[in-house]
Order: sequence, then C-alpha cells, then structure tokens
Amino acid sequence: MPQFHCTTPVQLRFSDFDSLGHLNNSVYFQLFDLGKSDYFNHVRGENIDWHHVPVMIVNVNCNFQSQTYFNETIAINTRTCRIGNKSFTLTQQLVNTATGEVKCSCDTVMVYIDLECGQPAPIPADWRHDLAAFDHLQDAPQSSCGQ
Amino acid sequence: MPQFHCTTPVQLRFSDFDSLGHLNNSVYFQLFDLGKSDYFNHVRGENIDWHHVPVMIVNVNCNFQSQTYFNETIAINTRTCRIGNKSFTLTQQLVNTATGEVKCSCDTVMVYIDLECGQPAPIPADWRHDLAAFDHLQDAPQSSCGQ
Amino acid sequence: MPQFHCTTPVQLRFSDFDSLGHLNNSVYFQLFDLGKSDYFNHVRGENIDWHHVPVMIVNVNCNFQSQTYFNETIAINTRTCRIGNKSFTLTQQLVNTATGEVKCSCDTVMVYIDLECGQPAPIPADWRHDLAAFDHLQDAPQSSCGQ
Amino acid sequence: MPQFHCTTPVQLRFSDFDSLGHLNNSVYFQLFDLGKSDYFNHVRGENIDWHHVPVMIVNVNCNFQSQTYFNETIAINTRTCRIGNKSFTLTQQLVNTATGEVKCSCDTVMVYIDLECGQPAPIPADWRHDLAAFDHLQDAPQSSCGQ
Repeated sequence: MPQFHCTTPVQLRFSDFDSLGHLNNSVYFQLFDLGKSDYFNHVRGENIDWHHVPVMIVNVNCNFQSQTYFNETIAINTRTCRIGNKSFTLTQQLVNTATGEVKCSCDTVMVYIDLECGQPAPIPADWRHDLAAFDHLQDAPQSSCGQ
Repeated sequence: MPQFHCTTPVQLRFSDFDSLGHLNNSVYFQLFDLGKSDYFNHVRGENIDWHHVPVMIVNVNCNFQSQTYFNETIAINTRTCRIGNKSFTLTQQLVNTATGEVKCSCDTVMVYIDLECGQPAPIPADWRHDLAAFDHLQDAPQSSCGQ
Repeated sequence: MPQFHCTTPVQLRFSDFDSLGHLNNSVYFQLFDLGKSDYFNHVRGENIDWHHVPVMIVNVNCNFQSQTYFNETIAINTRTCRIGNKSFTLTQQLVNTATGEVKCSCDTVMVYIDLECGQPAPIPADWRHDLAAFDHLQDAPQSSCGQ
Repeated sequence: MPQFHCTTPVQLRFSDFDSLGHLNNSVYFQLFDLGKSDYFNHVRGENIDWHHVPVMIVNVNCNFQSQTYFNETIAINTRTCRIGNKSFTLTQQLVNTATGEVKCSCDTVMVYIDLECGQPAPIPADWRHDLAAFDHLQDAPQSSCGQ
C-alpha cells in the first residue's frame, strides 16, 4: 500500500454533526477540500489561489466505512494515485488519528484546465513532475487508486 | 404590533440540525438571509443581485426563544422597523407556521453603501420610499424595532 | 433511459455558493439528501423518521458535469436503479429545471440495516415491493445505474 | 479594556466563503461556537460534553466591523464579561491574528439550566467561581460587556 506524504489535521465544529450524532456526509467533502488545498500547497510549494487554480473536480467516488463521532480526532490523508494526459486522480482518507481507523476513503478525478480558454488541457510538465515526485509515483503501480 | 407583509417559507435540510436535534444557531442566519433576499425582491420589485446590492449588515441582535426541531414547518417574517439617514433596521422572526410560535426574533441593522466608493451613504429617496411603502411605516411608530 | 418519478424542487441559499460563484460541492450532498428524504416519503407513503430509518449510505459516485450558479432554478431527480439482496442503488440528478440541463449525476449505494442489531440484513419484501413498484423496475434492466 | 485569556485558532474552509469572497455571516456563529467550547473546556478544566452542558444561548448581539477574506489567519477571543443570577454574558471577538484587527465582536447571553427539569436555575457556586477566576472578574467592572 503506497504511503501518504500529506496528512492534514482537521478542526471539527459542533455544527458538523447531524442529529444522529454523525459527522454529516456533506461535511466529509468540505474536509476533503481542506486536504486538497493542503496537498497542492505542499506539492507546488506555494499557497494555491483557488480563484486561479487550473484544476476542476469531475468525479468523486467515496466509500463510507464507519461513522465519525464528536470528540474523535480526525485528519485527512491525500496522495496522487494516477496521472493521465488531461486528468489525474487523488486518493484521500478520513482517518481517526488516535486509532488509525479509516472512516472514509475517496477517489477524486480532477481535470487540468487551461485557464485562458477554460477547457481541459494536457497536464503541463511541471505539474506532472511535482505530483509524481511528491508521491514517489515512479515507485508505485498506477493501479494504486481505488480502495 | 405591526404586521409582516413578507413571509418566506423555508426548506429545511437534514444537515441543518445538530446532534442535540436542534436547528443549529448558525443556520438561523442562513435562513434570515433567505428572508432578506425575498424581502428586498418584493420591496424593490426585482431580483436583487447580491453582488451589486448597496447594503451591508453591521449589527444583528437575536433572541432565541425556543428550539426548532426537524419536521417543523418554518417560515421567516421580515419587515423594516426603522429608516435612519444612512442605515435602516429589519426585524425578522423565525416562526412555526403551524402553531404561529415565534422561535427566534432578530433585528438587523443594515447600512446603505455607495457602491462607487464603498462607503456608507444616505439612503436614496427611492429606497426610502419603497421600504416605507411596503411596510406602511407612516402608520407605525419608529419604535417598532426590538422584541 | 428510465424516467424519474420523484422530482424535488430545491430552495438554494446565498451561503451555498462559494467564492468562485459555484454551488459548493459539499452542498450537492445536502441537496441529494433532500431528494432521498422526499423519495422515501413518496415510496413508503409516510414521513420517514431519519432517526429510525433502516438504511445507510456506503458508497457515492458522482459525476460533476457543469457548474451551478446563483439564481438557477434547481431540482433533484431520484429513482432506484438496482435492488440487490442487502443493498440497493439510487440514481440522482441535480438539474436546472428551466433548461433541463443535468449538472451532476450521482449513484448512492445504500445498505438495508436491521435496526435491532445494527447489521446489514436482507431487504424485506415490503421495501423491495415499494421501491420496484414506484420506479417500475420490472420494466427496466438492472443495468440502469451509472451515467 | 479587560484581557482575553482564551484565544482559539480557527481552521477556515473554502466553503466558509460566499460568492462575494466574504466569510459568510452564518459561519461566524459556527466559529464563535468553537470559541465557546474551547473556553468552557479551559474554564472547567475538562472536555465539555455539549449533550449534557447546562447552558443555553438566549441572545446574541454582534457588530460586524469589517469583512474577513480567504487566507486571513483568524482566531476567536472569548471571556466572561458579566455573571448574573441565572445568566452570564460572554464577549467574543473574531480577530485577524497577524494584524490584530477585530473583524466582529459579539456578546452572547447564556442561561444556566437545571438539566433535571430543563428550566433556568441560579448559577451554582463552582461555575460562578470558575468563570470569575479564569477571567479575573473581581478586577474588572461588570460594565465590561458591549463593544
């Protein structure tokens, strides 16, 4: 199993939990977004400005494995598991940092966008290099996506 | 007690309720915003574009009278209770439409903004007229704010 | 293409839109939850109490096809596309009701839970009948999931 | 001006910002809730269980002084400014920790609840002592509420 080199601690809010006492499903995606921001900041070595970021989410595929409760200590793991021509895939986990339990794992397909024309475009060499280098993709099979 | 001439039915979401089973306090303000949009659309006879709307919230003062539970049918009442020189005050209620119970009442002070310079400015005559006419303010004392 | 027999109009909130002006991804899942509640209420002919509802989400797979902007009129379409032994799959769409454009389509795998023991259990005959009858599943191939 | 002895760093999310690029008003109240939890944990020397916490919000009064933008570093300051018989008041600030700028200040009146009967009750001696000691209330006038 490939390692995660980006782990983002999460600050949970009382309003994140629904009347079943569960972290609401919709909040998982806010937290996965936190993880993505943190990941891109690490990979690109700069603060990503999401108003000019050349990627767009086209698919998410999430497995909800167990519920998350208030007072659990949570983090998001993020890595790139696939780099295609115009798209790449991030694998993320929502984990309990005390027990290591994976609560939810989610693959997100992101398309690279040429911001001038707003259309999908081939991932440029610098992005391709940065993603692969950060996650040692040369050492791992491309089949590392999926849970 | 002055009447409300703008009542906005609210569609509640499962995620609006926290783990105590209560409509979370922060959601009240999303719903009061719904009421404000609806109110201004009625008062001004047009769809307000909030990206170019010349008002800004500077104060909110809310009394939480009783909790709101899932499956209650809820609406927001909105009216203007005070028109000053550069600011005016909206009174809003979150009510159970089946019982009429007022769950929360909230006064919001809004400042009129000259969008060219971004600074507070005297409320122009057309806004002043529209607010007063919609809520029959000539018939009511200016002391109708506050709960 | 099978028809949807459950369409749920959505009331959007100003806070649903992020600083790109897009309906935030996390909100899609709040709206799909609205659609699920409405769907189960129709299918089961009663108001579902989500605190005692015997289903649990185990997987979501969503395709984001185009952005949703403020002042678009939105609804959620929901139908069952697969009934297995202990799980079934809902297909949902977020659509612009003025243009018919599908903004996002999402499959959700739900597991039936025996609430006494909290474990997955075979879907009982009445649920099986209600889901199939509501969506005329006998007329459609089980391959109607997926977009 | 009395000091704050409880400052809670805040992790902001992309979805906290609305399409004007502003931290949405409703999110301020989620963040003030974070500050209250942290404050009570410090004051009471334990992890407050909000499902059995004997306080209830009855009024909030907030001044919005300036907008908060993405990539600002934010914290919540919290202290008790008034201890009455059955209620007390917290003063909170949302501040930019880099500049010290106060974006919003908010007073919250909380009523002490006897959880057995669910009714307001006199604040017991241990709560009264803990609040006063933590914020050195004996050194400050009771008029320290309000902004």
